[in-house]
Amino acid sequence: MTAQATLEQDAEPNFAVRIVESPWFSNFILTVIIINAVTLGLETRSDVMSVAGGLIQSLDKIAIAIFTGEIALKLFAYRQRFFRDGWNIFDLVIVVSAYLPAGAGFSVLRALRILRALRLISIVPSMRRVVQGLLSAIPSMGSVVVLLLLIFYIAAVMATKLFGAAFPQWFGTIGESFYSLFQIMTLESWSMGIVRPVMEVYPYAWVFFVPFVLLSSFIVLNLFIAIIVSSMQEAEGQASHQEREDILHEIQALRGQIDALQDSLKRK
Amino acid sequence: MTAQATLEQDAEPNFAVRIVESPWFSNFILTVIIINAVTLGLETRSDVMSVAGGLIQSLDKIAIAIFTGEIALKLFAYRQRFFRDGWNIFDLVIVVSAYLPAGAGFSVLRALRILRALRLISIVPSMRRVVQGLLSAIPSMGSVVVLLLLIFYIAAVMATKLFGAAFPQWFGTIGESFYSLFQIMTLESWSMGIVRPVMEVYPYAWVFFVPFVLLSSFIVLNLFIAIIVSSMQEAEGQASHQEREDILHEIQALRGQIDALQDSLKRK
Amino acid sequence: MTAQATLEQDAEPNFAVRIVESPWFSNFILTVIIINAVTLGLETRSDVMSVAGGLIQSLDKIAIAIFTGEIALKLFAYRQRFFRDGWNIFDLVIVVSAYLPAGAGFSVLRALRILRALRLISIVPSMRRVVQGLLSAIPSMGSVVVLLLLIFYIAAVMATKLFGAAFPQWFGTIGESFYSLFQIMTLESWSMGIVRPVMEVYPYAWVFFVPFVLLSSFIVLNLFIAIIVSSMQEAEGQASHQEREDILHEIQALRGQIDALQDSLKRK
Amino acid sequence: MTAQATLEQDAEPNFAVRIVESPWFSNFILTVIIINAVTLGLETRSDVMSVAGGLIQSLDKIAIAIFTGEIALKLFAYRQRFFRDGWNIFDLVIVVSAYLPAGAGFSVLRALRILRALRLISIVPSMRRVVQGLLSAIPSMGSVVVLLLLIFYIAAVMATKLFGAAFPQWFGTIGESFYSLFQIMTLESWSMGIVRPVMEVYPYAWVFFVPFVLLSSFIVLNLFIAIIVSSMQEAEGQASHQEREDILHEIQALRGQIDALQDSLKRK
Repeated sequence: MTAQATLEQDAEPNFAVRIVESPWFSNFILTVIIINAVTLGLETRSDVMSVAGGLIQSLDKIAIAIFTGEIALKLFAYRQRFFRDGWNIFDLVIVVSAYLPAGAGFSVLRALRILRALRLISIVPSMRRVVQGLLSAIPSMGSVVVLLLLIFYIAAVMATKLFGAAFPQWFGTIGESFYSLFQIMTLESWSMGIVRPVMEVYPYAWVFFVPFVLLSSFIVLNLFIAIIVSSMQEAEGQASHQEREDILHEIQALRGQIDALQDSLKRK
Repeated sequence: MTAQATLEQDAEPNFAVRIVESPWFSNFILTVIIINAVTLGLETRSDVMSVAGGLIQSLDKIAIAIFTGEIALKLFAYRQRFFRDGWNIFDLVIVVSAYLPAGAGFSVLRALRILRALRLISIVPSMRRVVQGLLSAIPSMGSVVVLLLLIFYIAAVMATKLFGAAFPQWFGTIGESFYSLFQIMTLESWSMGIVRPVMEVYPYAWVFFVPFVLLSSFIVLNLFIAIIVSSMQEAEGQASHQEREDILHEIQALRGQIDALQDSLKRK
Repeated sequence: MTAQATLEQDAEPNFAVRIVESPWFSNFILTVIIINAVTLGLETRSDVMSVAGGLIQSLDKIAIAIFTGEIALKLFAYRQRFFRDGWNIFDLVIVVSAYLPAGAGFSVLRALRILRALRLISIVPSMRRVVQGLLSAIPSMGSVVVLLLLIFYIAAVMATKLFGAAFPQWFGTIGESFYSLFQIMTLESWSMGIVRPVMEVYPYAWVFFVPFVLLSSFIVLNLFIAIIVSSMQEAEGQASHQEREDILHEIQALRGQIDALQDSLKRK
Repeated sequence: MTAQATLEQDAEPNFAVRIVESPWFSNFILTVIIINAVTLGLETRSDVMSVAGGLIQSLDKIAIAIFTGEIALKLFAYRQRFFRDGWNIFDLVIVVSAYLPAGAGFSVLRALRILRALRLISIVPSMRRVVQGLLSAIPSMGSVVVLLLLIFYIAAVMATKLFGAAFPQWFGTIGESFYSLFQIMTLESWSMGIVRPVMEVYPYAWVFFVPFVLLSSFIVLNLFIAIIVSSMQEAEGQASHQEREDILHEIQALRGQIDALQDSLKRK
């Protein structure tokens, strides 16, 4: 009886799992995501909105309804296992945030709705792999990023103390100094835009900025190299490993032959 | 009779193939391409055109006639096989486009005529190889480029909704936002030219732009790394493979020796 | 008696060593460094200083006292060995410099106090390793940096002689030329900001600047490649070495087997 | 008699060779090069010249005299072999050019005199190696550079025809277009400085410039990768080769052992 009941209980989720994992289901959701991304893009065009504004808003509501149904079905199908996959939680957050109030004063929230198009990543397997590849590069950057943040904090405090009074628009607060130093690190207008004007007031300002440019570039370069080396080692490690295995396998075969030789000698 | 006819039919193409594949023929075409590229360049100089305009236009017409004859000869020589080589189709498109009407109102089409100089790539084998090498790097970029386009589309829709009203010259439409975000990704005047003016109206604009700069740079960096790693693996795979082959060959010889030892033991 | 005295003499340093090397001690110092970095940052905010200026300056004095105690304890614990570790000397210099006079006219010295936050590097082992990794990349850059400096010196002398009279703000002295050429090397406003204005006076100025841009970029690129290749070799050298060891170990085992075979043949 | 005469003739060059190749001789020349580089730098300072102008000009003349003597001695020492070493010819050209007329109207020639400091490269062996390393990277760039020049020529002709009339300051002639496209390739002010102003007249100008930016960046990236891969292969080829040699050597030893085994079997 109990087993029967369990089976019946499971029957429905199994049916739901079959739907959720079928190719036509993900293709359907993919189509809805793309249509929704296009309609959200069309909302930026006032000429389209004046003609077909009602239709576009209806399509948006339908898309949200479909996404809600999809998540509900997946929750029903996988139950607790749903929460073990990070991509499911990613989808859940995006769909739930669609129900946040988005009135006239919430233009930022309305703009964030296009983030739904990120669901394209979670639904297409090859996109998932690319993003997971990008994420896997982050740990190898860890401590270099901490060092970079430390250098930035020290440079921001120094720049605020040294140049904040004369150039409040660039170095007025630590936050503004952080932004200006980030701009300098990207080398955008660092000299003509910022350092030359500063040097007109403080002629020795280059003693601070030139080493900062060199040091931050050097650390960022090492960040890049860390990623390159780790990608490379991963890619080559596999190839080299295979080759070593082939050679070791051959040597094993040799040892087997010599053992056989030894045996045949003993038998004599 | 039929065989005889076939032979006669083939005779002429064979003769054409021999002409088309002879070194003096490609050298001649190469010379015409270079002369044509120079005359098309001279067309931009009004002083040269006022003196020798007629000559230059005649040379251009002669070059087109030679190219047409070359393609006709190749078509006659290779027949259907002509269309199997992508470089032939490339040449055909360039020569056919020379016959498009290029009147006074078609200055863009006239400017496009210099694209004929691209035939230099299809006629010089070492240039073909370089271009094929560049093209071979594209597949490894595939899914990262799709991800980058998705990020760009999302960012363009957001930028248009958030900043389009106040800065129509940069973010007025999705297209303009795409262009401005591309400029920001190349780091050209991203801060002094765009983000600082935007921050005067929306002080928190950096929350959108700084992560965009970091994310797009990070994705482009991974695009580069994908190309570097695939180039490297290709280059090293061959070297490593040769080395493994050498070692495996030596081990094979060892096994042969041990087999001989086994035999000589048995014979005793 | 003497041995007893030596033991007693050593007893105290050993006790000090145990304190200095205990995890809670470095965690305590780490906490003080972070609190001190935050208070030094807060000093830039006039609103915070007007309310809690006294508290912040007291915290700063307490932090310096703790750092002084820490260094004294380490000196007592390690004695001469203290000076063998570069990081200890680094800490000593930072703490000693806290006692330099920092009056109203010494605003630069006051700004330098935030450099104390660099002690975060010497106290956290993973940060030490990152910095040592960065420093280890420097020797491989050595002679390329010397070449780059030579090119810069030559270019600076030439630019000063050629353009110094007409553009004293950029090329007035060798020092100013050095700075301007550094800006040009980073590609910041090199053309629109500097070379185009110069070309309005000296139309052939591009003959100097375009090769300089190409040459300096090429040398910097080779600097990067030197670091990449040396990082890569280090990383792969270890992996390859392990693999070779595995294969050689297998071959040694083979030789052992063959020796045994030889023995059993002789014994017959 | 003839042999005696030859010996006597050789005696003097041998003596000269010994001088020229002695360490103190190159150290002396190195010192003269550095002093000369410093005096040529001091010539840019009018305050120094008004005080010690005569001394500096005398030092310059003495330096040229010493360099002339050095080259004469080397010519005498090595005779025809002098011209087999590229660095000797490099030195000869620099010293000979010191005797070109450098009057008031030849300020460019006067500025070029600092190029003598390049002799530092030819005299210091480690600098020679760096420059030879840089030069060795050039062949692997060969055909990609030709492709880049072809793309530049095509783009320059197109830009001149399309935008030359409206923007003669940037695209008036093919030469000016070349320079502007080079600036665009380095991404300096490409959008705010050039493409946005052009788009105000020709709204579709981005169809030309954005692909140009992408294509030229892609080709330059591949240029970099070509250099990285060739540097890497060279560096690793040697390491891998050594490892393969070790393994092959071990296998050879094994084969020797088995041969000995075979022999001892036969002898029985």
